[in-house]
Amino acid sequence: MKLWKKEFSLDKAIENFTVGNDREIDIHIAKYDVIASKAHAKMLASVGIISSEESEALIKELDLLLQQIENNEFMIEQDFEDVHSKIEFELTKKLGETGKKIHTARSRNDQVLVALQLYYKNELLTIIDQVKTLFNTLISLAEQYKDKLLPGYTHLQVAMPSSFGLWFSGYAETLLDDIELLSSSLKIVDQNPLGSAAGYGSSFPIDRLMTTEELEFATLKYNVIAAQMARGKNERIIASSLGNLGNTLSKFSMDICLYMSQNFGFITFPDELTTGSSIMPHKKNPDVFELVRGKCNQIQALQTEMLLLTNNLSSGYHRDYQLLKENMIKAFENMKTILEIFNYSINQAIVKNVDMNDEKYKYLYTVDNINTLVTNGMSFRDAYLKISSEVENGTYVPDASKDHSHVGSIHNLSLDKIKEKLAAKF
Amino acid sequence: MKLWKKEFSLDKAIENFTVGNDREIDIHIAKYDVIASKAHAKMLASVGIISSEESEALIKELDLLLQQIENNEFMIEQDFEDVHSKIEFELTKKLGETGKKIHTARSRNDQVLVALQLYYKNELLTIIDQVKTLFNTLISLAEQYKDKLLPGYTHLQVAMPSSFGLWFSGYAETLLDDIELLSSSLKIVDQNPLGSAAGYGSSFPIDRLMTTEELEFATLKYNVIAAQMARGKNERIIASSLGNLGNTLSKFSMDICLYMSQNFGFITFPDELTTGSSIMPHKKNPDVFELVRGKCNQIQALQTEMLLLTNNLSSGYHRDYQLLKENMIKAFENMKTILEIFNYSINQAIVKNVDMNDEKYKYLYTVDNINTLVTNGMSFRDAYLKISSEVENGTYVPDASKDHSHVGSIHNLSLDKIKEKLAAKF
Amino acid sequence: MKLWKKEFSLDKAIENFTVGNDREIDIHIAKYDVIASKAHAKMLASVGIISSEESEALIKELDLLLQQIENNEFMIEQDFEDVHSKIEFELTKKLGETGKKIHTARSRNDQVLVALQLYYKNELLTIIDQVKTLFNTLISLAEQYKDKLLPGYTHLQVAMPSSFGLWFSGYAETLLDDIELLSSSLKIVDQNPLGSAAGYGSSFPIDRLMTTEELEFATLKYNVIAAQMARGKNERIIASSLGNLGNTLSKFSMDICLYMSQNFGFITFPDELTTGSSIMPHKKNPDVFELVRGKCNQIQALQTEMLLLTNNLSSGYHRDYQLLKENMIKAFENMKTILEIFNYSINQAIVKNVDMNDEKYKYLYTVDNINTLVTNGMSFRDAYLKISSEVENGTYVPDASKDHSHVGSIHNLSLDKIKEKLAAKF
Amino acid sequence: MKLWKKEFSLDKAIENFTVGNDREIDIHIAKYDVIASKAHAKMLASVGIISSEESEALIKELDLLLQQIENNEFMIEQDFEDVHSKIEFELTKKLGETGKKIHTARSRNDQVLVALQLYYKNELLTIIDQVKTLFNTLISLAEQYKDKLLPGYTHLQVAMPSSFGLWFSGYAETLLDDIELLSSSLKIVDQNPLGSAAGYGSSFPIDRLMTTEELEFATLKYNVIAAQMARGKNERIIASSLGNLGNTLSKFSMDICLYMSQNFGFITFPDELTTGSSIMPHKKNPDVFELVRGKCNQIQALQTEMLLLTNNLSSGYHRDYQLLKENMIKAFENMKTILEIFNYSINQAIVKNVDMNDEKYKYLYTVDNINTLVTNGMSFRDAYLKISSEVENGTYVPDASKDHSHVGSIHNLSLDKIKEKLAAKF
Repeated sequence: MKLWKKEFSLDKAIENFTVGNDREIDIHIAKYDVIASKAHAKMLASVGIISSEESEALIKELDLLLQQIENNEFMIEQDFEDVHSKIEFELTKKLGETGKKIHTARSRNDQVLVALQLYYKNELLTIIDQVKTLFNTLISLAEQYKDKLLPGYTHLQVAMPSSFGLWFSGYAETLLDDIELLSSSLKIVDQNPLGSAAGYGSSFPIDRLMTTEELEFATLKYNVIAAQMARGKNERIIASSLGNLGNTLSKFSMDICLYMSQNFGFITFPDELTTGSSIMPHKKNPDVFELVRGKCNQIQALQTEMLLLTNNLSSGYHRDYQLLKENMIKAFENMKTILEIFNYSINQAIVKNVDMNDEKYKYLYTVDNINTLVTNGMSFRDAYLKISSEVENGTYVPDASKDHSHVGSIHNLSLDKIKEKLAAKF
Repeated sequence: MKLWKKEFSLDKAIENFTVGNDREIDIHIAKYDVIASKAHAKMLASVGIISSEESEALIKELDLLLQQIENNEFMIEQDFEDVHSKIEFELTKKLGETGKKIHTARSRNDQVLVALQLYYKNELLTIIDQVKTLFNTLISLAEQYKDKLLPGYTHLQVAMPSSFGLWFSGYAETLLDDIELLSSSLKIVDQNPLGSAAGYGSSFPIDRLMTTEELEFATLKYNVIAAQMARGKNERIIASSLGNLGNTLSKFSMDICLYMSQNFGFITFPDELTTGSSIMPHKKNPDVFELVRGKCNQIQALQTEMLLLTNNLSSGYHRDYQLLKENMIKAFENMKTILEIFNYSINQAIVKNVDMNDEKYKYLYTVDNINTLVTNGMSFRDAYLKISSEVENGTYVPDASKDHSHVGSIHNLSLDKIKEKLAAKF
Repeated sequence: MKLWKKEFSLDKAIENFTVGNDREIDIHIAKYDVIASKAHAKMLASVGIISSEESEALIKELDLLLQQIENNEFMIEQDFEDVHSKIEFELTKKLGETGKKIHTARSRNDQVLVALQLYYKNELLTIIDQVKTLFNTLISLAEQYKDKLLPGYTHLQVAMPSSFGLWFSGYAETLLDDIELLSSSLKIVDQNPLGSAAGYGSSFPIDRLMTTEELEFATLKYNVIAAQMARGKNERIIASSLGNLGNTLSKFSMDICLYMSQNFGFITFPDELTTGSSIMPHKKNPDVFELVRGKCNQIQALQTEMLLLTNNLSSGYHRDYQLLKENMIKAFENMKTILEIFNYSINQAIVKNVDMNDEKYKYLYTVDNINTLVTNGMSFRDAYLKISSEVENGTYVPDASKDHSHVGSIHNLSLDKIKEKLAAKF
Repeated sequence: MKLWKKEFSLDKAIENFTVGNDREIDIHIAKYDVIASKAHAKMLASVGIISSEESEALIKELDLLLQQIENNEFMIEQDFEDVHSKIEFELTKKLGETGKKIHTARSRNDQVLVALQLYYKNELLTIIDQVKTLFNTLISLAEQYKDKLLPGYTHLQVAMPSSFGLWFSGYAETLLDDIELLSSSLKIVDQNPLGSAAGYGSSFPIDRLMTTEELEFATLKYNVIAAQMARGKNERIIASSLGNLGNTLSKFSMDICLYMSQNFGFITFPDELTTGSSIMPHKKNPDVFELVRGKCNQIQALQTEMLLLTNNLSSGYHRDYQLLKENMIKAFENMKTILEIFNYSINQAIVKNVDMNDEKYKYLYTVDNINTLVTNGMSFRDAYLKISSEVENGTYVPDASKDHSHVGSIHNLSLDKIKEKLAAKF
């Protein structure tokens, strides 16, 4: 049921095409539409567009809807094209003329924008929080396994000594950059768009500073064209920052899958976290981490979709923008699950003892051998040539005695310093 | 000439393939390699790995190279595979054994990383500065043309009144979000990676805090795996934030191309800024803005390249990463030119008088008509139906009298507030 | 219920994560899993792995399932992780030991591969058919409107005369290239992968030529690694060819949205095909075409997702590949709807009379004026300069008299030739 | 020097911006511009637009230019904005008025289109040829190493026996799909666009069938809007098919890098094909294959750039399209080198003896054990459970005796059949 429907009837097939999956998706933003409507109703009364009785009545009904939503009792029936029509219908059913007044001085455009931005804010905060949890898990694992050595690879070739401590905390510190970009995205959606109406503002004397404060936005997007233009741009920016986090988790999962291979054998997980095969009874496959990798890669692909949906379109609303929310909301849902599963699983990692004396790891220490020569006065380039010829002659003997003592190295992980970097962000 | 070349000779075709265009590209980072080498030399002496005489000799030669670079006298000849080999060769030619010592306690990996990050920092600062200039240009244009009305469109259909003031300042305020993300990228590359060596640190007792301070990095990437893992991630993040700015300029250019069409006729530019046709003598084509749009779209595509180069690769260096810098550096060069040309050109925009009374713009004011009815007591939904039927009956008379007075609307652009938002960022 | 489940129980959260939406998605491929299972059962008997009684019993039950599927009575309950488990469960419930034998000499990997490829074949054939229908619609519209002129634009600037006939048939001929690539994708998935098992073949003496013939594949992917490696590659190739078709429809929709703008006013649609606004009563928005554009852009984005899911993964199955099918199947569903809606809607286009004498279209004929001069002996470059100066002096008089007679031009649309090109493809 | 330059002078900075790198890039298409110009000149005479003396004079001069180009003596000086201006200038310098006549009845748009399509055709043919060479190399290697076993992996876990023969020929057969798409792209660009002029045809009575035949195009793009609309679409389609080939080579390179790791040790290459490290003297890095992988990933990214450049732009030429050719031409140049290097290098692969009895490969044969039980009458599911419990009890004994005899399996590679598939394509 469309409230602004004109005389002519819309062809059924066309209607399904244009409505899409809004009814299902909008459940995620119902709460925020109600919250924004409450602030709008309060503001309308404060500037005299509606009476305070009307405002109070509206707010009372909106609060009841909010309760329904929180109790999972709220539904968007087939008759409604989206959550916004449904809510307005409920208000009108209860309050008659007063209910209809909720749409005064706003448009569907800014109504959707403000609900989505409130939703995005909330989801980004949740995700940042989950990333912090994962960061702490990794720092703990690094502390726990700081003495367990691991071969370090470059070009997938055995290169230099590394450790589980270094590996776990390397990903922890990398997460800090992901938090930086997530926080930046959060700041960008933390600007109130309400009042931009269809993208060109309103001739009503609305008080946008008041709704900004009511809705606890950090500031407002003053310019109404800028507010409208954020549609699509918000999604692209968020998709990019979620993708960035996805990239870290995807690479981490790749490491895990590699390290679980029999050819590496550095790490394993309890049976509950691995999966069998339909034909090979010996298999303990790292499906969880492969799916984390795959789902993170899908999230990394999202930015391209968001971009293609909006690119080369002139300013002003286009209906294409309706399509932005579905996969954006799915990405949030997926990312929250991924973070939960990843944190749960990595905590159960079973770190193995790697035999660093194995023949194939013999050359891990060539650089340390060189450094010993350098410390004794040889230039680096000459020491390099000397060890190089020992390697070729087969006379090379590893020097596994050296400590790596500088900040951020195997024997000086500087975990406190890394934790301070996180603390400094909040 | 490769300094670590072993006995066997590398096939020529293979060598060309692996060296690529490094010689040309590296000119852009030569300066930063020298600066980082100076800090490294100073640090090596301070921890006693080389003598202070050696350090001073190295720094003196590096300063000479810096001067050459600044005078555009520095060249990377065919004999060298990249700028790093060339610089080390020069030091060795001048200083013999001492020259060779510059590579003590570092690897090609962290040498490239630190030079690139210093380069990125510098370029991002330049671009943020250029964006500020453009922001100010747009705010001035908004002030200048605040009284010039323009039809506002949604769905490319005539919708509601807008203005040139609103349009120019809408893009200005949008640039603030681009600055937010550019600044975030800047913060991410502002972490010293030097000392991570091949990605697993060094057994030399290097002082990474000292080089961090010397190189004026805000902090350091403590964990050496994290430092190395930033390769690729830095580029993806920067590409995304440049792409975001590109998106704003691309949309702006699309508006301009549309508004320059004879079917809109809202804006034009002096002949010097338009281009003719090889067969149509009447053409004044908006090539500059089409090329801004196109080049910005190329920059928006860059993130996918950066992503594909690194995605699903395990941690640790892979040679694929050498390919990251070429198009990254080109994107910076292009973006600086785009910003210069765009700012230069938009300043010369010739804003036309749009006849808002033209028959095709008649319905721009329907919402204002509705609002007048609402102010007089009718509910929005009912007023909507009344004006709707006037439109259908042909009895509709536009009400162009209403002011848009709320913050961020046509008659209250709030330019000072928008300027304050920029100021608050720095 | 997993048929190869081992002793240990999989954590519930993990199970949900790994199963994903397979139950819902798999409905689309149920039919093809049954068909492939029938062929497999028949082959197993023919080479003596099972008895012909067993084979006949299996085929009989599979036929019953096929009927259920076709009557929409088939369901995949919560207990099953996917359609394959469900079908095997049904066979085992009915046939006991014999039911279990269906999985002999195959793996889940090739079972999924063959079902998906049969599904893709069918969908591609449907889509190619729909494209042919649209092609014919456009040729008819071109014939119908061949005399209706339209300004042609380059750089969005008025350029030279065009016509609705040229415009409609231009898109028709472009669709032929889309059919070329769709057919190529079809050819690529028309290679039987069954028998590749987990990607390394089987030690059973299976007859892959027989299943190839039974399943009506054009040929087989002989090499079992190649067969397995097609997973992901198939999806990327199809996504790209669907995206290519999407690109044509997206550009077509952009033209329509532009031409429906009051500033062009070239075309419109019946009220049933346009949408109103929640605040502007005069609006007749082209939502259908904006959504076609948007959905086609989403389909264009799909190839990046398919690529990111598989890129830089070594050969051999990875669980990430499970994630390929969901959005691939959705893209097929969407594309079929888009083609249906687009064909339905474009057929109802209301082509307007464009006043080619309008002042803003005056210069459409400059090239024709030049050509008249050239025909009378002047060189093109000189004629260009002459007309150019007339344009500048304001003395220019359009010469709208010239016919465009060469093949493929306004007055010689060559529709029969274009139809022949389609016919030659089949 | 622009031949259609009007009175006003273009600002220098703007000129550089709009000209871009055309001078350098255009060297690749110079030959094709000359060839197309010859056909155009011949046609102009045949329909009486120019005299046969003029046509002959033009063709004679064009032949001289062709010779220059083939001798690498042709240059595009700074004075010219692109190759087309340069060539027209040369003709005019030599032939005066007659030289100017070459541009009669064509536009820069169709001139660029036809030259690019001729170039694309030629490059695609070259690449298809190179792929055939690589195919043959791989088939030979498969034949040569058909008895060398290799562990097969799924989920990067040891799964079932494989072989070098299977691996090499798996990639060979996959290349056939790449050839299919390259051929399809070739077919799409093999349609003459000449005569479409600026995208709306010409009022001259040109003979497009004649130029189609002269230029040896398989057919023509009849509709002039379709011909013009191919700009961008051609590039996207080619980028996608090159990307597809890139995907195969990139995955192959990933396998090689993995197999060269000390943890696998399946394959190596002569020293000439590996690279050392600046700090680790023992390194023999697979840089060639990492760079093949990286460059192929860049080529895979190209389609997104091509798409973003053109997406959501209305029909008709836009200047953005000028930007399509640079990276397209680079991609061709890169792909040709990649194929050359890859074919050269893979031919030198040193296949190692893999100890299939190594403890970590023990479970490779579980499926074969199961199959033996099945052959003896047990159902697959029961045999699976039996072997599964042996694996868990530690009583499992591998059965390495079974042959894989079906087509496309280890002991029946069916190389002749795969070669027949290639032959059937030509």
